[in-house]
Amino acid sequence: MVEKVYVTYNEVHQLCQASAPRILAAFKPNLIIAIGGGGYVPARILRSFLKQPGSANIPIQAIGLSLYESLGTADDGAAATETQIEAPGTKVTRTQWLDLGSLEMANLIGKNVLIVDEVDDTRTTLEYAVKELEKDVATAAREAGRGGEATQFSIFVLHNKGKGKKGSLPREMMEGGRYLAAVTVGDVWINYPWEATDIEEHDRLAALQRSK
Amino acid sequence: MVEKVYVTYNEVHQLCQASAPRILAAFKPNLIIAIGGGGYVPARILRSFLKQPGSANIPIQAIGLSLYESLGTADDGAAATETQIEAPGTKVTRTQWLDLGSLEMANLIGKNVLIVDEVDDTRTTLEYAVKELEKDVATAAREAGRGGEATQFSIFVLHNKGKGKKGSLPREMMEGGRYLAAVTVGDVWINYPWEATDIEEHDRLAALQRSK
Repeated sequence: MVEKVYVTYNEVHQLCQASAPRILAAFKPNLIIAIGGGGYVPARILRSFLKQPGSANIPIQAIGLSLYESLGTADDGAAATETQIEAPGTKVTRTQWLDLGSLEMANLIGKNVLIVDEVDDTRTTLEYAVKELEKDVATAAREAGRGGEATQFSIFVLHNKGKGKKGSLPREMMEGGRYLAAVTVGDVWINYPWEATDIEEHDRLAALQRSK
Repeated sequence: MVEKVYVTYNEVHQLCQASAPRILAAFKPNLIIAIGGGGYVPARILRSFLKQPGSANIPIQAIGLSLYESLGTADDGAAATETQIEAPGTKVTRTQWLDLGSLEMANLIGKNVLIVDEVDDTRTTLEYAVKELEKDVATAAREAGRGGEATQFSIFVLHNKGKGKKGSLPREMMEGGRYLAAVTVGDVWINYPWEATDIEEHDRLAALQRSK
């Protein structure tokens, strides 16, 4: 049976807080990209702790990625990409992306971009995000005549599952200290608080776990 | 002196939970638009409670809006829109928007779209979001030959401040029950948990407040 781990909101908050100095020391991000929906909460919290006195907030851009196998389409007449039933899988689908033609993508050129998600499970989604963002920002830089400006991507996740990964990340990212997980756990089932139907019971189970 | 109100994560969670049945009864959203950064956390939580058994998750798209007065630009060489120091103001600037030319905007056509933010203060940001989204989706619908499909916007915020508003929302939205605030408060200063530098002290102050 897979072990279930309960994570409270305050733990998520404190994991972001504890990681912020390490992130600032390692790669001084000036832009955050949140992978939705799981990256929304840590990205927003992290922004509070990455803010430097006297400086503006670090902007957050959101992208949406879903990892699933196609199991056919729901019949509500909506676009197919939005209504397929999700199941664990290996196919990454974009539900939101940055606008190549607008300022959004141009804003990435020459920046230190921190990609934020809640969990690194199979690494498939993160591999997709890094590859596609690198490709698109290179295109945008070329088109803007700014091909000489290096854009550097880094990753922050709350939890990395120590297990065999299907996806892989650039070696220079891993070795260059630009991959940071607040915690490395086993191949456990992580219950994040934003999925709890009873948050008080969730917190009780988390406390019970801590006391063991 | 302005009263300070401390809101815990669990309270945010429970406000979303308590509001979900009202949202489902009033306007059955099939798409969420989170206004970042404040809307990210409630949007993600709300999605858990809006999910219907057997159906897919409701997709979330994020937009970024900043309300500020221009106070000049920081000197880090980044784009002007990203580095101006924020101050309370009346000018709304887009830091992220939906891609008119892609599926993102087309996905809105004919949908019930729920716009989510954390607070309705002066209403300026919400007015901007509704007006601009209505305009852009109308353009997208016309260009797609789908002008006959009605797109309906609704709003959810955690807190509405009961005060004179600078911005206004469509009368049919307000009267049609498509504006929903989990709580209406006075013109207080709301401390959200994701801005807390010490989350345990934050929770202690919140508990103290509740006990009064």
